[in-house]
Amino acid sequence: MASGTASIDHFWAVIPAGGAGTRLWPLSRSSEPKFLHDLTGTGRTLLQGTLDRLAPLAEERVVVVTGRPHRDAVRRQLPDLDADWVLAEPSPRDSMAAIGLAAALLERHDPDAVMGSFAADHVIADPDLFADSVRAAASVARDDWLVTLGIEPAFPSSAFGYIHLGDPLPGHDAATAVAEFVEKPSVRTATEYLATGRYRWNAGMFIVRPTVLLDLLGRWHPEFAATLRTIAAAPERLEELWPRLPKIALDHAVAEPAADAGRVACVPSAFRWEDIGDFDSLAALVGGDAAQTSVLGDAGLVHAVDTTGLVLPAAGRVVAVIGLDDVVVVDTPDALLVTTRARAQDVKQVVAELKESGRGDLT
Amino acid sequence: MASGTASIDHFWAVIPAGGAGTRLWPLSRSSEPKFLHDLTGTGRTLLQGTLDRLAPLAEERVVVVTGRPHRDAVRRQLPDLDADWVLAEPSPRDSMAAIGLAAALLERHDPDAVMGSFAADHVIADPDLFADSVRAAASVARDDWLVTLGIEPAFPSSAFGYIHLGDPLPGHDAATAVAEFVEKPSVRTATEYLATGRYRWNAGMFIVRPTVLLDLLGRWHPEFAATLRTIAAAPERLEELWPRLPKIALDHAVAEPAADAGRVACVPSAFRWEDIGDFDSLAALVGGDAAQTSVLGDAGLVHAVDTTGLVLPAAGRVVAVIGLDDVVVVDTPDALLVTTRARAQDVKQVVAELKESGRGDLT
Repeated sequence: MASGTASIDHFWAVIPAGGAGTRLWPLSRSSEPKFLHDLTGTGRTLLQGTLDRLAPLAEERVVVVTGRPHRDAVRRQLPDLDADWVLAEPSPRDSMAAIGLAAALLERHDPDAVMGSFAADHVIADPDLFADSVRAAASVARDDWLVTLGIEPAFPSSAFGYIHLGDPLPGHDAATAVAEFVEKPSVRTATEYLATGRYRWNAGMFIVRPTVLLDLLGRWHPEFAATLRTIAAAPERLEELWPRLPKIALDHAVAEPAADAGRVACVPSAFRWEDIGDFDSLAALVGGDAAQTSVLGDAGLVHAVDTTGLVLPAAGRVVAVIGLDDVVVVDTPDALLVTTRARAQDVKQVVAELKESGRGDLT
Repeated sequence: MASGTASIDHFWAVIPAGGAGTRLWPLSRSSEPKFLHDLTGTGRTLLQGTLDRLAPLAEERVVVVTGRPHRDAVRRQLPDLDADWVLAEPSPRDSMAAIGLAAALLERHDPDAVMGSFAADHVIADPDLFADSVRAAASVARDDWLVTLGIEPAFPSSAFGYIHLGDPLPGHDAATAVAEFVEKPSVRTATEYLATGRYRWNAGMFIVRPTVLLDLLGRWHPEFAATLRTIAAAPERLEELWPRLPKIALDHAVAEPAADAGRVACVPSAFRWEDIGDFDSLAALVGGDAAQTSVLGDAGLVHAVDTTGLVLPAAGRVVAVIGLDDVVVVDTPDALLVTTRARAQDVKQVVAELKESGRGDLT
C-alpha cells in the first residue's frame, strides 16, 4: 500500500524538457533554455527542482525527453539519472511526440507502468501537496483514465487554458470527470469561470497508463500512435521515423478529444503552481508585490536607489538602478535587457529583431 | 596684426584637465575622467576637442595641467603636444594652484605672454565665435585686465554662477567691466537676472597676462603667489612646495576680489557652450528633445522599442530597452547604470555607496 511518503508502485515520471523561453531573453537562450536556469534563487535549476519533486514518488523511474542540443546539459544537471532514460529528440516536434515516445518505450519496458508527465520548467511551492495529488491521480489512472491535475486558479488569468470540471468520478473521491478543456480565455471570461468554482488551470500535467495514452492517440491519430510504437520496438529507426511525426501538442492530439469522449478525469489540486513565462511572472515569484527591488543572484552586486522591480546581475558586474518603478534589468555577459514588468512580454519582439538583423547567435 | 584666422601673438592656451566627473559614472571614473571620453560622438574626446578649438589661436603654445595619474593618457590623446608642457600636479589642489602653476612658468618663459585658461571638459558648438571672443579678450588682457568670457544664458540655469556686467570698458568696444561674480542662484533669481540682460554665465574662462594674474593673487594670497613663483624658478622643489598650496578655486582666490577691486573685464560671447555635468545634460546635447532613443556609441548594438532617452553601449554588448521614457542606460565592461534623466544627478549617491562598500575600484 502507498503511504504518504513512499514511492508509487510502477510510477514513472516523464519530464519533457523543451521550449526556449523566448520571453525570458537574454537569460534564457535557445542554447540554454529556461529549464536549465535557477530562476527561484534556491540553487537548483527548474529542471533539478522538477526532479526533486518527482524522485520521492518515482525513485529511479524518471525519463527526461529533451532536444539533442541539451542532452549533455541535462545529464550534467541530473548526474544520478540513468543515461538510457535521457531521451534526445532528433528535432523538436511538440509535446505529443516527446511524451508519446516515452509512453511507447514504457509500454514495452513495464506493462504495469503509470506515467506522469510534468514540464521541466514549472515551479511548485508545495511539494507535499503536489505528491498527494499525483498519488491520487495515479490511483485513478490505473482504472484507465487519462488524468490531469487541476490547479486552483490564483486569479482570473488570461495566460492559461482552463479545465471545466464535470461530474464526480464513481469510486474516486479525489477526482471528477473533465467536461472539457477550454482555450486561454479573456480576463472577463476567466472571472466568470472562477465565480462558478468549476474551472481549474490546465498546467499540462497528465497521469496515465502508457497503453491508455497510445490507444487514445490511436483513436484520432492512428498513424502517429503506430509510428511511436514502431520506434519503441526498433529504436534504431528513430532517426528515420521521427521527422514523420506531426507537430502537435498533447492537449490537442489527445486530451481535448478524449475529454469529449468522456475519458478524462481531473484531480483538483491545492498546490501553488507557477509557469514562469516572462520577467513579470518571475518578478512576482521572486519578490511578490513588495515595494522594493528583488535581486535574483548576487545581491551584493546591485545598488538600487528608489527603485522597485527585478534585477538579475548574471554577468558579475555591478548594477546600479536609480529612480525606476517596476523595472526589469537582466544583465548577462553578452546582452543586456532593460524594460518594465508591464512590457516584459515584448521581449520576444527584440528576439525577433535580433534574428532578423543577423544576431541570432544571441537568441 | 591679428586677422580673423591667424593665431594670436604670444597667446598661450592653458588647459586644466582635472575633475573626476562623478555624476557621469560609470562612464567617467577617477581613473578615466570625463575629459578623456568622447561624449559628443564626434570621434574626439572632450580634451581633444578643447585642443582643436585652441590650436588655431595658440599654435604650439599649449599647456595642459593634469593629475599625475592622467599624464600618460593626456599625452597619448595629444601626441603632438610638447611633453614639457604637459604639467602633472603631484596631488589635486583645485584650479588656482593648477592655473597658477602654468602662469608662474609662463611668466618666466615668455614675458609677453597672454594666457587663456579653458577647462578640458567643456563643449563649444561654434569654434569661430569662440575664437573671435578669445581674440577680443586677449586684446583687452594686454591692457592688464583679468578678462573673462561671458556666456549668453540659454535658460535660467541654477547650475552655473553668473557674471554681473558693469560699465562699458573705455577703449574696448567688445568688453565691459564686471560688476561682480554671483554664486549659483535659484531658478527664480536666475530668471530675474536674464530679464535685465546684464548677466552672463560664468564658464570659468579667464584670459590674462600671467604676471597680472599672479600679482592679483598676491594682493589677497601673497604666500600662494610667492610659492608658485618659487616653484617656477626652481621646478625641482615642486614636490616639496606643492602640498603647501591652498585648495581654492581661481574664482574665489582672484576673480571675485579682483572684480570688487574693479580689475575684471568681460567679453560677452555668443557661442553655445555646454558643461556636461550629468547624463541629463549629455542626453540634451546628444539628442536634443527628440522623442526617440539617442545612442552615444555603436547604434547597431542598441535595440530600443517605445523608448526615449540615452543609451551608451560602451561594453560592446547588445542593449535592449523596451517601454521606458527618458531612460539613461550606461553599459560599461564592469558596471552598469540604469536611471532616468530626471534622476541623473543621484548617480553620485551610488558612487558614494560603492566607495563605502569597498568597491572604490569601480569609481
